[in-house]
Amino acid sequence: MRAGVFDSGVGGLTVVKSLLSSGFFSEIIYYGDTARVPYGVKDKNTIIRYSLEALEFFKNFDIDIMITACNSVSAYAIDELQNQAPFEVTGVINPGVLAVENSLDKKDSSILILGTKATINSNRYATLLEEKGYKNTFSIAPSLFVPIVEEGLFEGNILESTIQHYFQNIQEPDAIILGCTHFPLISKAISKYFPNSKLIHSGDAVVEYLKKEYNLKNQYPKTNIKFFATENPDGLKNIAKKWLNLDTIK
Amino acid sequence: MRAGVFDSGVGGLTVVKSLLSSGFFSEIIYYGDTARVPYGVKDKNTIIRYSLEALEFFKNFDIDIMITACNSVSAYAIDELQNQAPFEVTGVINPGVLAVENSLDKKDSSILILGTKATINSNRYATLLEEKGYKNTFSIAPSLFVPIVEEGLFEGNILESTIQHYFQNIQEPDAIILGCTHFPLISKAISKYFPNSKLIHSGDAVVEYLKKEYNLKNQYPKTNIKFFATENPDGLKNIAKKWLNLDTIK
Repeated sequence: MRAGVFDSGVGGLTVVKSLLSSGFFSEIIYYGDTARVPYGVKDKNTIIRYSLEALEFFKNFDIDIMITACNSVSAYAIDELQNQAPFEVTGVINPGVLAVENSLDKKDSSILILGTKATINSNRYATLLEEKGYKNTFSIAPSLFVPIVEEGLFEGNILESTIQHYFQNIQEPDAIILGCTHFPLISKAISKYFPNSKLIHSGDAVVEYLKKEYNLKNQYPKTNIKFFATENPDGLKNIAKKWLNLDTIK
Repeated sequence: MRAGVFDSGVGGLTVVKSLLSSGFFSEIIYYGDTARVPYGVKDKNTIIRYSLEALEFFKNFDIDIMITACNSVSAYAIDELQNQAPFEVTGVINPGVLAVENSLDKKDSSILILGTKATINSNRYATLLEEKGYKNTFSIAPSLFVPIVEEGLFEGNILESTIQHYFQNIQEPDAIILGCTHFPLISKAISKYFPNSKLIHSGDAVVEYLKKEYNLKNQYPKTNIKFFATENPDGLKNIAKKWLNLDTIK
């Protein structure tokens, strides 16, 4: 089984980390649109156009499934991708909703959805959760989280003041959806502020989802992984080495 | 005298504010590429391409001078624009250097250059200052300043921790170049951290530069101003109303 992972930049590596642990794949092709990141501030049509370009890229490879790690892509472009792709396509939003179902028994549980402006404006998580009976959701787009993560500030004063800024008027929710690939990197600080909230991580959610939908098994102790980027591929590879603890990278 | 002001987004309004006070212009056409902001993380060729598109836009108007408020554009695209434009073109970097010359007598004065990654990587301020004899310059790209300003956080904990983060290992300089249109909006907090540094503001610098280069005079008590944006023009107009204290806007 071979997967193509598409992301707007390097953030999708947090999803790759989970996919590597899953042992589902013999090979992963990662494609980051680093030249045009971030997608989370772009409009729907632009996100769809860029996603279809990524689809064309993956047609060069013999993949079985395309996984869109980026939540903004998953919010706006999944239908188009599924219509046009000669392979399976999954985003991270349906998996995130499944993870909520697996974690929260009570339908009146409170769920905080965090995402980029694009993801939040799409209302995709809230709509799907409501269809499953979860009506107690509230959404915010904490715009500073992405640049803070990109600056490598995974702890400390700046991050803590920023979390305080966005969360100060919110009651601790039962679950928090980390609806952007960058957010798992600051999950420790989020948990420090809301210690009792269950965090929903796109990577883990996708693994559970693939297991359920495609009956995938942990069968590859080693996954061959290749990285491609639209700008500065060496930068992507360096971050991948660090985040994924890889020795050699192609 | 009519000016076209080009910026990557809304930040150039800080330059417009100074231009309105100058009384140099009967009319200002503002063009913000809000669909593709920010430019400060893009590469040279992309910035030049987008700037030439802005030039085409201004050819629709009978302007005498195009002013590029964006420092990243001023750093990379001025030569191309000047070669191709049927009107005068000025950026904000030569004006900034002139402002340093007007402010600092001693050539060994220390000058801190703040800008986006694109502006800092261009090395344009440092090179021009060195040509004028100022060799004691140092540059940083405080990447979080722009998103913090865009979030409207002009004071408070987040901004103060961020300033501390970038400035903590720096000795108070004699002057600080606010080399990005967003930075004047947090000049108070910067001055609080470095109270004795002279701040160089692109808007004021451009006014001084135009006076010297073109012998412009304060002759228009009222400037007619029109706003155009590549995305969400109403958003631009609302910010303009607030920042520039305008009653009516076209």
